[in-house]
Amino acid sequence: MADFQPQDVIPEVLHPYFPRDAALSHYVASKFNMSESLTTLSAGVGLLAVISIILLARARTSLTGKDKLIVIWMIVCAGIHIVLEGYFSFNHATLAGKQSMLADLWREYAHSDSRYLTSDPFTVIMEGITAVFDGSFAIVTAYGILADSPIRYPAQLITSLAQVYGDVLYMGTNCMENYKHTNPHPYYFYFYFVTLNAIWIVIPTYLIVDACKNIYRGMLIAQRATTIKKSN
Amino acid sequence: MADFQPQDVIPEVLHPYFPRDAALSHYVASKFNMSESLTTLSAGVGLLAVISIILLARARTSLTGKDKLIVIWMIVCAGIHIVLEGYFSFNHATLAGKQSMLADLWREYAHSDSRYLTSDPFTVIMEGITAVFDGSFAIVTAYGILADSPIRYPAQLITSLAQVYGDVLYMGTNCMENYKHTNPHPYYFYFYFVTLNAIWIVIPTYLIVDACKNIYRGMLIAQRATTIKKSN
Repeated sequence: MADFQPQDVIPEVLHPYFPRDAALSHYVASKFNMSESLTTLSAGVGLLAVISIILLARARTSLTGKDKLIVIWMIVCAGIHIVLEGYFSFNHATLAGKQSMLADLWREYAHSDSRYLTSDPFTVIMEGITAVFDGSFAIVTAYGILADSPIRYPAQLITSLAQVYGDVLYMGTNCMENYKHTNPHPYYFYFYFVTLNAIWIVIPTYLIVDACKNIYRGMLIAQRATTIKKSN
Repeated sequence: MADFQPQDVIPEVLHPYFPRDAALSHYVASKFNMSESLTTLSAGVGLLAVISIILLARARTSLTGKDKLIVIWMIVCAGIHIVLEGYFSFNHATLAGKQSMLADLWREYAHSDSRYLTSDPFTVIMEGITAVFDGSFAIVTAYGILADSPIRYPAQLITSLAQVYGDVLYMGTNCMENYKHTNPHPYYFYFYFVTLNAIWIVIPTYLIVDACKNIYRGMLIAQRATTIKKSN
């Protein structure tokens, strides 16, 4: 014991997350395994898609294939934002030890980012905004398309920009800390962290450009129509 | 020395920031004092306002008072985002010890938030986005108003939403950490942290609502004009 120094005392690590010294004393293992959790998530997304298809079938306006896909996307997003990310926002402090299917899903995803279990301030605030704000505007966008309302494009722009901004900050902060919150296994890093998050950068970026183009065209028509009206 | 424990060794604090144990070994005091720094900032903002007024005088379209104010606001924002926040983004790692007027300004503001001197990942990424993205779209908005281009409202919406999102996250994360990065003196807390940041929540929120209203009205006119054209 002669050379023993107090700084050599390493607390026992009782969780599977990265960084290995993350403070997760309240961690309790999930009851369901990974495939059960992912099947539940897929079933949830499938249910949201079915709801979208029912709403599309009842819509009075005739929609293009692209608009139909955007309705499905926005309703799936609203469900994920409000239910999954809303659950995180309300339960972040106790999530690591909570026993529920949604807590299991977060414990699974947290292999790719332990900030979801440690109440990381940025992650908590960003997810709160995503749940309340992005979730609501995704519903407004879907409604705007289904009802052929002029609110559609501003709502599409707001939802998509908020999604991209939150996601770029989310990925960027982890990158700047050398992905220390992420399990380096390729499955967790490339599938959970990179691929799943890239979806919410690629699709919303396309929808931002789409909204801007349509607003530009619409505002040009409105400008000309108003000028004609004024000159008559 | 019998009861001495290694954890009692507290590193000497050689900087004026909060939290008092923030790692700022590279800190060097500013050459200019607070009033000199703030005078320079005010002069910079004044110069941007003068540039805006010159551009407004040369504009071919007749603008409302509100639109003129938005041009001034956007050009002032672009200057602050690109010059001041761009400087931070490039120099965050060495800012605490850098000798320049802009570094002095950041050392002064950092009394209200030491994350600007410690390369806090969220602050660095958010400021990078603000400098490049918000800065560019603020210029596009000002151009859109001056040139009476339909790009104006989508650009106004994008700039303002990005400003509000960044600012809410910025204030929210510090709040969630009980303002530990902030000097509790009322001047630093209420003036620098609360008031200065509230400006970039209140004005952009108004401009988001303004953009949405105008896009809604424009898209409605465009919708009707297209329907009339189709029915003829």
